[in-house]
Amino acid sequence: MKNFVLHNPTKIIFGKNTINKIGPETYSFGCKVFLIFGEYSVKQNGILDQVSCSLKDAGCIIIEFGGVKSNPLLSHVRTGIEQFKKNNCDVICAVGGGSVIDSAKAISAGVKVEHDVWKFFTTKKSISSTAPLTCVSTLAASGSDNNSGMVLTRDQNQLKFGYGNRFLYPKVSILDPEATYSVPKDYTAYGAVDIVSHLLEFYLTTMVPSSPVQDRIIEGLMMSVMESCNNALINGRDYAARAELMWAASLALSGLTAAGLGRVGFPMHLIEHSLSAIYNVPHGAGLAVIIPGWMTFHAEKHPEKIAQLGENIFKIKGNCKKDIATETIAKFTNWFKDIDCPVTLGELSINPDHHVDIAVNTQPLAKVWRLKEYDVDTVCTILKLCR
Amino acid sequence: MKNFVLHNPTKIIFGKNTINKIGPETYSFGCKVFLIFGEYSVKQNGILDQVSCSLKDAGCIIIEFGGVKSNPLLSHVRTGIEQFKKNNCDVICAVGGGSVIDSAKAISAGVKVEHDVWKFFTTKKSISSTAPLTCVSTLAASGSDNNSGMVLTRDQNQLKFGYGNRFLYPKVSILDPEATYSVPKDYTAYGAVDIVSHLLEFYLTTMVPSSPVQDRIIEGLMMSVMESCNNALINGRDYAARAELMWAASLALSGLTAAGLGRVGFPMHLIEHSLSAIYNVPHGAGLAVIIPGWMTFHAEKHPEKIAQLGENIFKIKGNCKKDIATETIAKFTNWFKDIDCPVTLGELSINPDHHVDIAVNTQPLAKVWRLKEYDVDTVCTILKLCR
Repeated sequence: MKNFVLHNPTKIIFGKNTINKIGPETYSFGCKVFLIFGEYSVKQNGILDQVSCSLKDAGCIIIEFGGVKSNPLLSHVRTGIEQFKKNNCDVICAVGGGSVIDSAKAISAGVKVEHDVWKFFTTKKSISSTAPLTCVSTLAASGSDNNSGMVLTRDQNQLKFGYGNRFLYPKVSILDPEATYSVPKDYTAYGAVDIVSHLLEFYLTTMVPSSPVQDRIIEGLMMSVMESCNNALINGRDYAARAELMWAASLALSGLTAAGLGRVGFPMHLIEHSLSAIYNVPHGAGLAVIIPGWMTFHAEKHPEKIAQLGENIFKIKGNCKKDIATETIAKFTNWFKDIDCPVTLGELSINPDHHVDIAVNTQPLAKVWRLKEYDVDTVCTILKLCR
Repeated sequence: MKNFVLHNPTKIIFGKNTINKIGPETYSFGCKVFLIFGEYSVKQNGILDQVSCSLKDAGCIIIEFGGVKSNPLLSHVRTGIEQFKKNNCDVICAVGGGSVIDSAKAISAGVKVEHDVWKFFTTKKSISSTAPLTCVSTLAASGSDNNSGMVLTRDQNQLKFGYGNRFLYPKVSILDPEATYSVPKDYTAYGAVDIVSHLLEFYLTTMVPSSPVQDRIIEGLMMSVMESCNNALINGRDYAARAELMWAASLALSGLTAAGLGRVGFPMHLIEHSLSAIYNVPHGAGLAVIIPGWMTFHAEKHPEKIAQLGENIFKIKGNCKKDIATETIAKFTNWFKDIDCPVTLGELSINPDHHVDIAVNTQPLAKVWRLKEYDVDTVCTILKLCR
């Protein structure tokens, strides 16, 4: 195990009928609330109304800021920072999935500085304080409700960057599995793939000797995500399935799973971010395409850990690690197909002519994330495996 | 999954050569440090000196308070509260295992009130603030470094009580696996049994439908504890083994493992506390004796979950849940024997004449912990199974 610091101060309030706690929890950080949300779903399913009522009942004054898109945009965040400042807000309350919470995090950091918020993402500036943030999560996917990361797309030049800082943990996150009942099948599946991808990045990209504690936590989460996603697709109102999925999403990127692993890379996210940035592909759909290709590439030199994963979660048996790794990759690919996710670039209407453009787009982030082994040629090699 | 709140704000600093961080971390809460420790080991292995140096280098003034015994005593805590107050200390720094950290927690709560600290344990009073606490953990066992619980023995009438409150989380805990190199074999094993017992209490005493996420986290931790304990007993300076054991101990009772389980009972701890209180048995040794007996008792009516555990961690196969449960209990018992722990009351020189005394001693805590089904007759039935 490598040395680590784990300090996740987020208060998680999990379960049925918990959304009405958002008012008093938010009010404890101040009266004037910058309420941020997306475009449609939280209005349609009534969750935004529930949150607004709870905030008002607690004595909050609400400044609404809606319209966050999936693959959220820097330009929108910049507007949010202006609005927050203009209205002298005390606290941010985010209602939505990862896009909304990530936008809220960027605003929470941006309102504390004079420089442009994008400088955090390029690591030209670091965060030293943030406005307090509370969340009501409505999607089991990014785990942004319980972590210190955020992802934004700079619309101007199609760059999708991720950045992490300890000041970005939400103060309070409310996770009511019933809030995800109305998530449609496609986004339920994309969310599950996103969770699995986070776990795969940690499990497979560390070169240190394995930590059995960490490996088993990750394997257990991965099995639970696959099972509960399948159940939630059969019945979207299966509380147990929605709860498992939501809790697994929250744990998968919370700091727990990365503890003791040393430096981890996020190469699948690196490549997927370019798909989302250029083609506005849903993040989970892009990941379902990239994961099999990247794993195939990775298995060439490092089949052992992929094989270990397959042995432990799919109970694959055999003597040849390469063969077990190949079968493991096939199992994941087949599961993605089963839950109706795309598994080839072709299904996203991205043909081989685009590979170089995508690979070139990855390079600025590869530099910031110090993934220098992922140069244009290497990314093209991987994209070719994604067909 | 049942509703839950998870809010563990402890900052964990884990790894080699981290003890020298205790000075600056502690100083951030104040200059005058109440330094609490045990009787021998931290002096002999040099860890107390390292901590003192780090504190002094950071500019702290140290008030020493040593002499905490295993199964720590209320009378000693009361003296600590007086000393802390008399010296106007700002912060407590605990260096040791669970007994030291638990004593420190009791002092941290006791210095904030005028009434006797025991009233917290009897739940006659609740905690609303504590003095800040930092820890250097030297034993992989209780997990007190990363939780909100504490256990004390009221020497006056041999009552060993445990109590939990969210204000009891340490602010910072330093977990350096090398600090456990000098733990002798017996206490290494007792520590591992303690960790396993915490996991068993959660896994087996909840009557709600299983949560696969939680079950798998617990199963994974349990397997890792058994493996790494075995390795640490072969070579006490096996860093990987000591690290796994230390991290698993810290996670096992951190709030993570109990999330979503609803109300859990701690019946094995209930009975063991009486063994420790009356006979001053090491906690882990007492647990190794109680666990097989309690599991046998529990398996009579509820073999399913014990069988699930055996199937998943020991790979036991079969059709009859009762038989699998019986084999699972035998596996634990044999492992306790393998690591040289006692598995019968007889080995602790406790004969059947004592059963009623022990059972009567459990009753005040059974009342506080609301384990009313564990009356004197029931506890005697279990003790009989512990031979």
